[in-house]
Amino acid sequence: MDRSRRELMGGIGAGLVLAGMGGTTACAAPPRKLGYAIVGLGYYATQQIMPNFAGCDHAKLVALVSGTPAKLAQYGDQYGIPKTHRYSYAEFDRIGDNPDIDIVYIVLPNSLHAEYSIRAAQAGKHVMCEKPMAVSAAECQAMIAACAKAGRKLMIGYRSRFEPYNRLAIELARGGHVGPTRIITAEHGFPIKAGQWRLDRPLSGGGSMMDIGIYSLNAARYLTGEEPVEVSAIASTDRSDPRFASVEDRIDFMLRFPSGIIANCVSSYSSAHNGYRVIGTQGWIDMEPATQYSGQTMMIRKDGVTAPRSLPVPAKNQFAAQLDHLPECIANGTAPIVAGEEGLADLRVIEAIYRSAAEHRSVSLSA
Amino acid sequence: MDRSRRELMGGIGAGLVLAGMGGTTACAAPPRKLGYAIVGLGYYATQQIMPNFAGCDHAKLVALVSGTPAKLAQYGDQYGIPKTHRYSYAEFDRIGDNPDIDIVYIVLPNSLHAEYSIRAAQAGKHVMCEKPMAVSAAECQAMIAACAKAGRKLMIGYRSRFEPYNRLAIELARGGHVGPTRIITAEHGFPIKAGQWRLDRPLSGGGSMMDIGIYSLNAARYLTGEEPVEVSAIASTDRSDPRFASVEDRIDFMLRFPSGIIANCVSSYSSAHNGYRVIGTQGWIDMEPATQYSGQTMMIRKDGVTAPRSLPVPAKNQFAAQLDHLPECIANGTAPIVAGEEGLADLRVIEAIYRSAAEHRSVSLSA
Repeated sequence: MDRSRRELMGGIGAGLVLAGMGGTTACAAPPRKLGYAIVGLGYYATQQIMPNFAGCDHAKLVALVSGTPAKLAQYGDQYGIPKTHRYSYAEFDRIGDNPDIDIVYIVLPNSLHAEYSIRAAQAGKHVMCEKPMAVSAAECQAMIAACAKAGRKLMIGYRSRFEPYNRLAIELARGGHVGPTRIITAEHGFPIKAGQWRLDRPLSGGGSMMDIGIYSLNAARYLTGEEPVEVSAIASTDRSDPRFASVEDRIDFMLRFPSGIIANCVSSYSSAHNGYRVIGTQGWIDMEPATQYSGQTMMIRKDGVTAPRSLPVPAKNQFAAQLDHLPECIANGTAPIVAGEEGLADLRVIEAIYRSAAEHRSVSLSA
Repeated sequence: MDRSRRELMGGIGAGLVLAGMGGTTACAAPPRKLGYAIVGLGYYATQQIMPNFAGCDHAKLVALVSGTPAKLAQYGDQYGIPKTHRYSYAEFDRIGDNPDIDIVYIVLPNSLHAEYSIRAAQAGKHVMCEKPMAVSAAECQAMIAACAKAGRKLMIGYRSRFEPYNRLAIELARGGHVGPTRIITAEHGFPIKAGQWRLDRPLSGGGSMMDIGIYSLNAARYLTGEEPVEVSAIASTDRSDPRFASVEDRIDFMLRFPSGIIANCVSSYSSAHNGYRVIGTQGWIDMEPATQYSGQTMMIRKDGVTAPRSLPVPAKNQFAAQLDHLPECIANGTAPIVAGEEGLADLRVIEAIYRSAAEHRSVSLSA
């Protein structure tokens, strides 16, 4: 048992008070800030995640892993990471020897998520992994098994679950604020620029669906709290567009849920979309933008009246709240609200979506 | 050849000037207002269509057909229709003897559209028929053939094609105002009240799809100017709800068009929807409400800026413009912009939508 884990176990034994997580999930506060190693220093890691450790109560950045020495130097210096805590991929497995690292956050291209998550667990570390969790449901299952075997937690980076408007939308939709939900529409997309790993199937595992369409899918699932039983999809990709030589552009899909709710979803790499609407028997809850980094806007129509719904700016933004959630769950011995099973559930549906589009038929899923 | 037709032919021969239809379609003005017989005196006929003859330049109400003597008396008196121009269904075929009637407007339950349209044509009258044109593509073909054989025009009541915002949306979408269209989303629905013929399959031919989902379908077709080549649908109906004993509640569908555009469409009898959005590579054109009787609201997002687009109130509303269009086309010898072929095209797709939902597979259509 490494030092950090012993400390944590001691902390839990001491009976810590509940941390104020703004209502996410009641977890005990860890005895100290837990240390994250960030694996993969691309745009999202360096520009969105890393600056937000400053707003965390329970998380701190302690190590970096990259294949680019210049990035290790630049961001290592910027964040005061000692050279002993900067790793190349060849040195990755040595993180097991570093007691300052409690959590490894995988921000690599999708096809590397499973390998590095499993190696991190085997090195005795807890794992945070970006979405999509992996490029297949089988990989997700292997990740869950590896973390379970190592006795380490696994959490997927579904940041919208830590964003106040999305949390309110879940509460309102599931609580029947506009009557029982009948239809959900969810659209996500952006015109992608050429020259990214996201457009290279061996690295991405797929196109818009893996990257941005997953927000439509995940929203449909979290707004219903149900798992779809039928999936139908249609893909449309201009293969003469050099961006889409190996991955899909547009793939739209419908999901039927056990309660009868139908979700109509858009996924696109050639047009801009960011919104969803929950339509009940008495009105609707609309979010646009819904899942961007900031600026969420909610409108509610109920009994014939349409009005905006505003929330105060949270003390902790969605990135910091997500980074703090895993340390809290580790301290408390609870499961993250977006554990590996959540990523697996999305990948199961994504595989059904791809199969439906390829075979021109709807695909049944067990509830 | 009846008298009204001889008059019209003479009028066309005289070379009439073009009528100012506000840009719909240039047609010659008829020499006099043409007379309509309204068949079926339900809500839509009496509350929406009949009051709008007052705003017409080329159309007037001259006859009524109903199975309810009290309605014939009430509306006959209200609109000054002489008793000689009030018909029961048993007397319907006598309209052929009435030279004041130029056009028969069928506003009956869907399953009666074909029979009465064909009998009207056989009586020597031009035909306006409400949407859905009929309950099958085969019926639509029979209607087209009957009108062609009788030398009479056939027009379907797609009033949105005479509504200025929808006409602007068509122009902007097809003209690439926000770049080439990639995705269209279209949602139509309302919580239906029990006790209507629309919920009785022998009269309606189907549920929400026939009645309100057809607006989503028709919008996807007129906003693209294309015919879908692939259709996929999922239905969801609570059969324990007494409203839905014989017809579907929700049926959502996706359409793939030859250019690659995908349309995601909602049709619902248990939730309220009225909107569409055309998403191009550079932004989108949003309409909500889109196809209501009034109150259309357009928002356009282009190059990162979202702004409303307002049009002046037209001198002639969509109902009056529609009523005037057929007389203009009769005078000019041109085809209505929403001729029988337009209704047939929708029914072909509706049949594919129903088949897709029933067989859990996508259905291919020839372009």
